[in-house]
Amino acid sequence: MPSPSALNAPHVVVDWGTTSFRAVLLAADGTQRDRIETGDGIQFVEKHAFETRLLALLAPWLEAEGALDIVLVGMVTSRNGWIEVPYVPCPCSLEDLARGTVTRTLSNGSRAILLAGINDPARAPFPDVMRGEETQIVGFGLEKDATLVLPGTHSKWARVAGGRISGFRTFVTGEFFALLTQHSFIARAAGSEHAGEDMAAFERGIEDGSPEGAEGDAMLSLVFAARTGMLAGKLAPGEIRDYVSGLLIAQEFRQARNCGFFASGERIGIVGNDGLNRRYAVVARHFGLDVVEGSDHAAIDGARQILAAAMGDLT
Amino acid sequence: MPSPSALNAPHVVVDWGTTSFRAVLLAADGTQRDRIETGDGIQFVEKHAFETRLLALLAPWLEAEGALDIVLVGMVTSRNGWIEVPYVPCPCSLEDLARGTVTRTLSNGSRAILLAGINDPARAPFPDVMRGEETQIVGFGLEKDATLVLPGTHSKWARVAGGRISGFRTFVTGEFFALLTQHSFIARAAGSEHAGEDMAAFERGIEDGSPEGAEGDAMLSLVFAARTGMLAGKLAPGEIRDYVSGLLIAQEFRQARNCGFFASGERIGIVGNDGLNRRYAVVARHFGLDVVEGSDHAAIDGARQILAAAMGDLT
Repeated sequence: MPSPSALNAPHVVVDWGTTSFRAVLLAADGTQRDRIETGDGIQFVEKHAFETRLLALLAPWLEAEGALDIVLVGMVTSRNGWIEVPYVPCPCSLEDLARGTVTRTLSNGSRAILLAGINDPARAPFPDVMRGEETQIVGFGLEKDATLVLPGTHSKWARVAGGRISGFRTFVTGEFFALLTQHSFIARAAGSEHAGEDMAAFERGIEDGSPEGAEGDAMLSLVFAARTGMLAGKLAPGEIRDYVSGLLIAQEFRQARNCGFFASGERIGIVGNDGLNRRYAVVARHFGLDVVEGSDHAAIDGARQILAAAMGDLT
Repeated sequence: MPSPSALNAPHVVVDWGTTSFRAVLLAADGTQRDRIETGDGIQFVEKHAFETRLLALLAPWLEAEGALDIVLVGMVTSRNGWIEVPYVPCPCSLEDLARGTVTRTLSNGSRAILLAGINDPARAPFPDVMRGEETQIVGFGLEKDATLVLPGTHSKWARVAGGRISGFRTFVTGEFFALLTQHSFIARAAGSEHAGEDMAAFERGIEDGSPEGAEGDAMLSLVFAARTGMLAGKLAPGEIRDYVSGLLIAQEFRQARNCGFFASGERIGIVGNDGLNRRYAVVARHFGLDVVEGSDHAAIDGARQILAAAMGDLT
């Protein structure tokens, strides 16, 4: 398997999303030398203008270093981005991901390497999809078999087996949390009384979101506890946000467990750095899991590994 | 059991909610003689001003008829309304509901009879609550044992047994539907392309929302089908709303079934008139249920029965 040490020149990794542009300049050995973050999300860029915009945003580095390999991940590789890179189907290895990249040589001699997202054709009723998280999974490591969760607006649960990403499933937990706490009866009850994090309320939410038996699967009913708890005088307005957060993440774990992602006593990797990892670790331990925290650099490590694996095809 | 035929004078039933005021004038035998509907919801009425407002809104009838019995249901009986009527706990009979009413004699000699909501102390983690639907259940009938669903923003599933409402559970299905289709990734995908009802898409949603096995319980994952179906070219923007509607109502039935409310081959009553009954009947049949449609007059019939039962205490 190619290792990032196969890289022998500085290179750039760009996470170009809908609302932001984030780039890091890395030395051949992966040391971070500089970073650029702007609000130039893809939604503000015309289809034909991506190359020009990319070269302009990275101009300081390109002027100093000359042509560079520029790895691109995120929505820039989607239908709404620069070039739509087809999904690589699961199960998929590092080499499959490398072969799935799309490369374009730019006017200054740099190479843009756009990474592929992946899909899971085994999911019903339609293939599940991810775009970006697969790079974090590669950065976490494909060597050991593992179950991973990548918390987020749309959390991803994935299995790594035999050196490949063997399958995954999306849970829209973060989106439900935002909807409930910003627009629903829960938002009205919580009002503006939330004053900082209340981990005790979060733990009560976990407990109430994971009762034994079939009633624990009745999520449409369980979330009504945010109202009945208020009416019963057992939940204060300031506790509701964190209570609902615990309840929903517990539901995610319960559903993932029932879909076969883990059993009590096993180990789980938590990958990502969007601020939810600590919460997911608390819930994982509630479900009897040993937690392995992924590195904050998983995304960059993964992009470097895919770049290294792709080098053979490129050079 | 007192029957509405025990009523021997015209009377009024008022459904006074947060945003609207709806009153009907009934003859002693229940024939509807007139109705008044305005936007004078309780949110626009000061605590001390309810009696004055009520007498003003009903002035045409009170001037013609003299003093009347006025039954009040809805949020007017809640903490934010005129008088907070304590919940009657399940199991509860018609007599229990009659004893739970609060009566006030008004300045013109009329009597305001405020009906109680009910709660179910058997529900965990907190007692479940309803306020108004219990009157519809009484109107549907407490004589025969039955399982009932009352579709709505917060659907209620209830069991009638031994002449009493023996227990119930809330499912926030309608609220989730509104959140997803107005504020989420689904709202963005559906855009403004919804042009009328698409019952074929609704039936596909039912099918995809009720797969066999544990994966069918993974609601946080199943709703992502609204996106993956689009990406797979299997769902058109104009189909998404009805597809999600079918998927969520199927999830409600699945969860209710797993909580013990029904088994395939049984009978279910569908009560209410908010436009969802037809959809709930389609899903009920998908789950192997025989459907009994409740009367559109269940709420008024129930109010009259509770009034008749309360007469003994009042006179």
